[in-house]
Amino acid sequence: MFSSTTVISDLNKIRSETPLIHNLTNYVAMNITANALLAIGASPVMAHALEEVEDMARLASAVVINIGTLSPLWVEAMKKAIRAAVLKNIPVVLDPVGAGATPYRTETARQLLAAGPVAIIRGNASEIRALTESSSQTRGVDSLETSEAAIDAARLLSRQFGLVVSVSGPVDYIIRDSDLIGVANGHPLMPRVTGLGCTASALTAAFAAVNQDYFQAAAGAMAVMGIAGELAGENCAGPASFELAFLDWLYRLSAQEIQSRLKIK
Amino acid sequence: MFSSTTVISDLNKIRSETPLIHNLTNYVAMNITANALLAIGASPVMAHALEEVEDMARLASAVVINIGTLSPLWVEAMKKAIRAAVLKNIPVVLDPVGAGATPYRTETARQLLAAGPVAIIRGNASEIRALTESSSQTRGVDSLETSEAAIDAARLLSRQFGLVVSVSGPVDYIIRDSDLIGVANGHPLMPRVTGLGCTASALTAAFAAVNQDYFQAAAGAMAVMGIAGELAGENCAGPASFELAFLDWLYRLSAQEIQSRLKIK
Amino acid sequence: MFSSTTVISDLNKIRSETPLIHNLTNYVAMNITANALLAIGASPVMAHALEEVEDMARLASAVVINIGTLSPLWVEAMKKAIRAAVLKNIPVVLDPVGAGATPYRTETARQLLAAGPVAIIRGNASEIRALTESSSQTRGVDSLETSEAAIDAARLLSRQFGLVVSVSGPVDYIIRDSDLIGVANGHPLMPRVTGLGCTASALTAAFAAVNQDYFQAAAGAMAVMGIAGELAGENCAGPASFELAFLDWLYRLSAQEIQSRLKIK
Repeated sequence: MFSSTTVISDLNKIRSETPLIHNLTNYVAMNITANALLAIGASPVMAHALEEVEDMARLASAVVINIGTLSPLWVEAMKKAIRAAVLKNIPVVLDPVGAGATPYRTETARQLLAAGPVAIIRGNASEIRALTESSSQTRGVDSLETSEAAIDAARLLSRQFGLVVSVSGPVDYIIRDSDLIGVANGHPLMPRVTGLGCTASALTAAFAAVNQDYFQAAAGAMAVMGIAGELAGENCAGPASFELAFLDWLYRLSAQEIQSRLKIK
Repeated sequence: MFSSTTVISDLNKIRSETPLIHNLTNYVAMNITANALLAIGASPVMAHALEEVEDMARLASAVVINIGTLSPLWVEAMKKAIRAAVLKNIPVVLDPVGAGATPYRTETARQLLAAGPVAIIRGNASEIRALTESSSQTRGVDSLETSEAAIDAARLLSRQFGLVVSVSGPVDYIIRDSDLIGVANGHPLMPRVTGLGCTASALTAAFAAVNQDYFQAAAGAMAVMGIAGELAGENCAGPASFELAFLDWLYRLSAQEIQSRLKIK
Repeated sequence: MFSSTTVISDLNKIRSETPLIHNLTNYVAMNITANALLAIGASPVMAHALEEVEDMARLASAVVINIGTLSPLWVEAMKKAIRAAVLKNIPVVLDPVGAGATPYRTETARQLLAAGPVAIIRGNASEIRALTESSSQTRGVDSLETSEAAIDAARLLSRQFGLVVSVSGPVDYIIRDSDLIGVANGHPLMPRVTGLGCTASALTAAFAAVNQDYFQAAAGAMAVMGIAGELAGENCAGPASFELAFLDWLYRLSAQEIQSRLKIK
């Protein structure tokens, strides 16, 4: 059963074990991703050269693949990193940023899935739907759909590839086969800060690095994201002070706040 | 006539229509650029792969081309994005970062202009002058000249290419043929935050996405930049708290603040 | 003799001369690096294209080479920039991020050293040791060793290449042949902010741009880093508010704070 106890236990493990998380992610979100991983207690590394991507993945406890600013050489490196992670038996989290917006993104996301097995896919509703529907076209990296609209697609993906799907939105849905957790924490300013979706994927990798039940790990990451977001939203003047407070709260988050605030649906 | 009414109306349109702004910009400014666009109410996307740059431009309402950290593949992608934007009849904003500092930058900026038509060029005085003078050499990305020093060059560029030129400095000058608007808002800390010029270009694109009079759109963006800067400067302890407050103010800016603070020369 | 007088004098020179610092650095740290250089009073430029990297280096007063997110084309550009800097007789600061973590990083760092002469190497203990030991393997970009553990390696490097080595840690050690300065300023939150090591390297370049005694310049940069860190740590709620206050303090730092706080060992 998923509960605040799991989240607290995983968070404590991250803080004590400082797992190394290897990120192949986009230029826009690299800085906040690294800072969020440091704040939560993990250790980030970014490396994308074909010459070292496998060596780095082998040092890591989890790998994040994020196609936000993809290009052919990076995609090749992502495939190499996935294969190295699979050989070492560490989890891969795939963030199919903007899948559906352009054919190149949709096809690349599918190729990366095929290079797996991937442990967890985390995206918004448009992106998740784009991975299953041939006709879907999103509007870039922002989702205009509610997360509910992607539950069926997520279940399909989960069954087809044997992985966990984490759909973010006002309620985050974490899906594995017929299982579903809804995390109802969060704050309306979150979509107004760039890279918070990418940050969710990075934290998902940190949780998966310490909890082999990737379904619970994915839910724990979204819980921590949402709770830190709520706390940040209580005292901010706009999206920039929100982002600052959010990162501070990732660092400060205590068992008590998680216990009293976690909203599971 | 340009007045606060135009600025307020454009800002409201951005907030209600959330235009998608496609950015091919530099690594340093990507994060603040994306956050500023989100704060103002627009929707940013960054994509530079030759495989998708045209598809993404076709989804957008405006395209930003910024050569801050240029390299050959990126320049090729920029040309493709410009051509796709022209075909779709959406505005292109060119930020010739560091033009004049190296021959490669100056030549690339001129090639990008030739790939147009570009709707608006936004740069500092050195950069604008470098686009017209064969002998001009700047000192990198910082302008040591006043914006006034580039008015003649801006007028020349405007006439030669049939576009709007926005020269930033203590007073920002927006020039179209014989027309000129001076925006005297702003704060001395603005040049101490990296990427604020790039941010001005991105906001210029957001305004051009909702106002086909690019002369007014360019002025509106500089007005919003300057007013948010003034408000941010009232209560900050240095450039980092200034940047945070600036982004928060882009999000919070009301019609009243624009009306009472806009200084047109 | 190194004392607060040297640090204050160098800082004043940076503020009055605004030396142009050319950075070939990693995607994660570009933004904070540029902002830190602006805050301290220097002028940052980032340029990596083979087509312009030498032209830009020739305009600069110092060059920073940071391999945090290296790839072959960037490494080629780094070598070109080093050679241009050497010809112009301006200092090169090398930050061998993650040396020891993968063979590619270690070998690249050594090749860059060979392309020199480099003026100053700045890294953590693992990275410095990796440059001298054939067996050393680090754990990515975070050092698990104390800075003391790298003093012998630093001395070896200094003698072999005739350069200054700056090893950061709870105490920063600056080494030139048999000389050693220990700077004991700083704050425990510093390793929780991404890119602060890279920032130290960039500030080191700014100090080296105004003080040809690179041993003192390297120590001055670490002094300013540590003192700004201490001041930032006095009033922050986590790593993000720490980073903001740190940058503000770089901008605000006065002679009095440097004089009263500098802790030399």
